[in-house]
Amino acid sequence: MKIKTPYLLFIGDAKHAKTAFGVRDWRPEQALAQYRYPASMIDLGLPDMGFAEAYRNGARTMLLGSAPAGGVLPEAWVDDIISALRAGLDIASGLHTKLNDHPRIKPVADELARSLWDVRYPKKTFSIGAFEKRSGKRLLTVGADCAVGKKYTALAIEKALRARGVDADFRATGQTGILIAGSGIAIDAVVADFIAAAAAELSPSAADDHWDIVEGQGALFHPAYAGVTLGLIHGTQPDAMIFCADPSRTRLGDFELYPQPDLKEAIARYTEAAKLTNPAARVAGVSLNTSSMEPEAAKAILLECSQRTGLPCTDPIRFGVEVLVDAFA
Amino acid sequence: MKIKTPYLLFIGDAKHAKTAFGVRDWRPEQALAQYRYPASMIDLGLPDMGFAEAYRNGARTMLLGSAPAGGVLPEAWVDDIISALRAGLDIASGLHTKLNDHPRIKPVADELARSLWDVRYPKKTFSIGAFEKRSGKRLLTVGADCAVGKKYTALAIEKALRARGVDADFRATGQTGILIAGSGIAIDAVVADFIAAAAAELSPSAADDHWDIVEGQGALFHPAYAGVTLGLIHGTQPDAMIFCADPSRTRLGDFELYPQPDLKEAIARYTEAAKLTNPAARVAGVSLNTSSMEPEAAKAILLECSQRTGLPCTDPIRFGVEVLVDAFA
Repeated sequence: MKIKTPYLLFIGDAKHAKTAFGVRDWRPEQALAQYRYPASMIDLGLPDMGFAEAYRNGARTMLLGSAPAGGVLPEAWVDDIISALRAGLDIASGLHTKLNDHPRIKPVADELARSLWDVRYPKKTFSIGAFEKRSGKRLLTVGADCAVGKKYTALAIEKALRARGVDADFRATGQTGILIAGSGIAIDAVVADFIAAAAAELSPSAADDHWDIVEGQGALFHPAYAGVTLGLIHGTQPDAMIFCADPSRTRLGDFELYPQPDLKEAIARYTEAAKLTNPAARVAGVSLNTSSMEPEAAKAILLECSQRTGLPCTDPIRFGVEVLVDAFA
Repeated sequence: MKIKTPYLLFIGDAKHAKTAFGVRDWRPEQALAQYRYPASMIDLGLPDMGFAEAYRNGARTMLLGSAPAGGVLPEAWVDDIISALRAGLDIASGLHTKLNDHPRIKPVADELARSLWDVRYPKKTFSIGAFEKRSGKRLLTVGADCAVGKKYTALAIEKALRARGVDADFRATGQTGILIAGSGIAIDAVVADFIAAAAAELSPSAADDHWDIVEGQGALFHPAYAGVTLGLIHGTQPDAMIFCADPSRTRLGDFELYPQPDLKEAIARYTEAAKLTNPAARVAGVSLNTSSMEPEAAKAILLECSQRTGLPCTDPIRFGVEVLVDAFA
């Protein structure tokens, strides 16, 4: 179940295109071309192509690479999507609006036997096994909060491992990650009973020297989403975790009533939780988002973090992830 | 959104009728009558009535009070359900088969404007608030494992509180509990993102001296279901928890690879988890299922448990829950 690539990245008249930029940056070999309306302010730096032209050049799926407010499909895009289907392309979407429920899009896709990927909606049931320890190695990015760099850190680690010749696969758990990787499971949209089972299916048994690099979600200290996080930990059985945080925050991003957790306590709690399904689990390093700081202040906070935790600490965007990879691979 | 009562408890040809017995025992005022096939081996000790007779005597909903293997609706029951609808009754079901999707049942219910309650399927979204502390008091039953008496203990505590004149409501989180109480949310069937939000909706702000007694689910030490448990804890914001266990087990019920947790460590972990959304949270007592033991052995293990934990310990079926209620109410 993998989305066919390469992609034509659809921008249209969108104001933001986080997913399209993600594909361009992390899977450049899949980013064949872009499709923009004339007034578009966004430029991915890729060739502009029409639907048929993109198909002739090898594109197999048009990816809706932007998320309009509320995740609702703009009516203006519907004709473009139908034209792309007729030109030979599948469609992949992370929107709330289901392409598979759309009264005009779905019949055309059925008639032409094209695939419509609504990656926000996982399948409804997963097999709950005995939760035995699986072969192969797994890393999970965890965090102090939502939106602290768990996806970015995981993608950067996959890239660094592959550059070292290690067999590694990024495993996506959210819609942007799924569209970048071409497969994955939107773990927060799974029925609650199946969180851990879905996470287990996402990183199956593998060769002993293979690493799955699993994108984390939520945080154990988050009043709304900690259940997702705990199930993801238990199902993943991580050998190593990388703890991600934004040191400029004092409260949780969207939950002002709740504080950021203490760094050392958070690391202890993640380790404790993960040991249930992998007694060898440990936090191997820390990834800090220091984008709001001056370079010298960033270096100082990374040094302080490293001294407090005894772990390698880095900002992946500023200083790369080599010190993290050294700590577990 | 409450199921209309009293009930006609449908047994048909079922071999087990856990839910029907639960209603009879915990909500006797709602258990008006039973409907059995002639060869039935089950007898709730209630009057046998037909559909129209039950309606004339005040019944307003027919409850499918048994769970056939796999939760699939037996074809033989479909005509009975349609007859009951025509006689004036709503239908409530905890089966996997959705009455609301059934090609013969649904149109009849629509035509007659009757309600079909598929309590295994909660609504799809819940409002995620700021997770502020709500007014009123809450107790949550938690456990070492699944199927250790969390529902029974909660219902017994509700009954004991009401007998003392305390304003208390059992809040159901599984299908059997929902059918007994007439309302609730099947928490393990909620989309993962909404576990805590659904739990919060289940026990809303209330008068300062009101107690919600929330039925627990799963266990923090369960590799498959701990995420549900953690979200339920965070959303409930319990002031008090009762820890439930079966001392005859050494491994988890359906997961032989995993041990029962240590009693004191388990209590510490539940307390730690609950403090995130209610800093005053504590485990107030222990409920042990000693049904597999002789009376003297049961007394000995309760005494040992109480000495180890410093908490009141009881078997609710053998010795009641008064010592638990004394510890928090």
